[in-house]
Amino acid sequence: MKRTAFFISDGTGITAETLGNSLLAQFDGIQFERITLPYIDSLEKAHAVVEQINDAIEKDQERPIILDTIVNLEIREYIAKCKGMMIDVFSTFLNPLEKELGVRSSYSVGKSHAIVEMNRYKSRIDAVNFALDNDDGARIQQYDKAEIILVGVSRSGKTPSCLYMALQYGIRAANYPLTEEDMANPGLPECLLAHRSKLYGLTIDPFQLAAIRHERRPNSRYASLDQCSFEVRTIERLFRDESLPFINTTTFSVEEIATRIISERKLNRRQ
Amino acid sequence: MKRTAFFISDGTGITAETLGNSLLAQFDGIQFERITLPYIDSLEKAHAVVEQINDAIEKDQERPIILDTIVNLEIREYIAKCKGMMIDVFSTFLNPLEKELGVRSSYSVGKSHAIVEMNRYKSRIDAVNFALDNDDGARIQQYDKAEIILVGVSRSGKTPSCLYMALQYGIRAANYPLTEEDMANPGLPECLLAHRSKLYGLTIDPFQLAAIRHERRPNSRYASLDQCSFEVRTIERLFRDESLPFINTTTFSVEEIATRIISERKLNRRQ
Repeated sequence: MKRTAFFISDGTGITAETLGNSLLAQFDGIQFERITLPYIDSLEKAHAVVEQINDAIEKDQERPIILDTIVNLEIREYIAKCKGMMIDVFSTFLNPLEKELGVRSSYSVGKSHAIVEMNRYKSRIDAVNFALDNDDGARIQQYDKAEIILVGVSRSGKTPSCLYMALQYGIRAANYPLTEEDMANPGLPECLLAHRSKLYGLTIDPFQLAAIRHERRPNSRYASLDQCSFEVRTIERLFRDESLPFINTTTFSVEEIATRIISERKLNRRQ
Repeated sequence: MKRTAFFISDGTGITAETLGNSLLAQFDGIQFERITLPYIDSLEKAHAVVEQINDAIEKDQERPIILDTIVNLEIREYIAKCKGMMIDVFSTFLNPLEKELGVRSSYSVGKSHAIVEMNRYKSRIDAVNFALDNDDGARIQQYDKAEIILVGVSRSGKTPSCLYMALQYGIRAANYPLTEEDMANPGLPECLLAHRSKLYGLTIDPFQLAAIRHERRPNSRYASLDQCSFEVRTIERLFRDESLPFINTTTFSVEEIATRIISERKLNRRQ
């Protein structure tokens, strides 16, 4: 069974597609074709959207799911004329919120992008620069400014996790790759000792690590299962010996790795 | 007026906080303290959440807004006993979706993190590595593999925008910083000529650019308003002369820059 799902917004479309994906994930027997239509901010664009929806009905012989977060009432009502199944997020939730808060909502698109947003932007860009500057143990002298330092073997997911924390939440995340040299010595590398409370370990299934490294450097010792198994075994022992918290990234998405660490370490999700 | 808002989930909490922030942005007269509580996946944790909510009621002397995307019915019902105002996303939308689709939803947390999610993970990590490898014109020989190449002066927002496209949508985005050397010659740098259809320009208000650069290199010629104005003027003229599409990033968030470019260039939001 196949259905088309449209996520429609007069803004970025991120809220609509995030919510839509969460809801559709609960229906695993059905294959959805997902189409995000952002910046639908004029009746002209709304008209084209309705045509696209009606075309999908003809193609699928089923009516599509339409999830929209359009703020403008006129545009929303225009799209509601289509023959899809409408899930209108704002009209569902804004009314009860208005009653609860005792004020009318402002019904304006992109409201969040004022001064608050500029500050958020700045803190996120700063955090991204921090993550890039402190990637792969490049600049350990900045570790005192880090909120978290991820420790793991090469290609265990440190960099994407740091970047996600930086971009999404403005968190200053550094990372340190444990090298073979480090592993030859007992205990933590000296440069990490002063920052013990900020350390968080990443580990990964050796087979997956080998597969990932193989794409980077095919048929190298670096990518061999023997080497990967050795490194993972050594680092997990280190995490346990040093009582460092750690997470196995094998079956987790970047979002999950980041939000689990943020949650455990009670870091601030700056929004 | 101040209110507390809780975004609660048995997963990452990203859907709850994304939707919650969109809704609360419509009430600009009210100051919200926002608290995201992810991974609330046991009755024990739910018990602690209810206590935290009731504490907030006492502190604020107003009931908090609770927006939850908890899938587990037992946990959801437990939290619904608190005295906050509940916005229960799944119970609101899953029922009508079940009727429309003619099947029961699976009510399972983290459903999306199966094989599909692993593939998504891989494509996103590949895209992040691509963005890092191709940052600041580092490896122009990979431009044929890029889906988009952002062009702009230093610190105009290229790197965060590329990383956002990579992390969120698995898009391979490279970027090229137009240097003073490039600006001394007419037209596009030669290495970009073959990729004209992938180019997208970023520009920025010279005052903001100067402020950003000043933090990086205080009191430098690089950060001077004269220099920034010159570079911005030159690059905007280039964009116009070469008929390149471009966006002024000054008042946009990273999400907005990325999604506007994706939308205009009809790139695939891989999910």
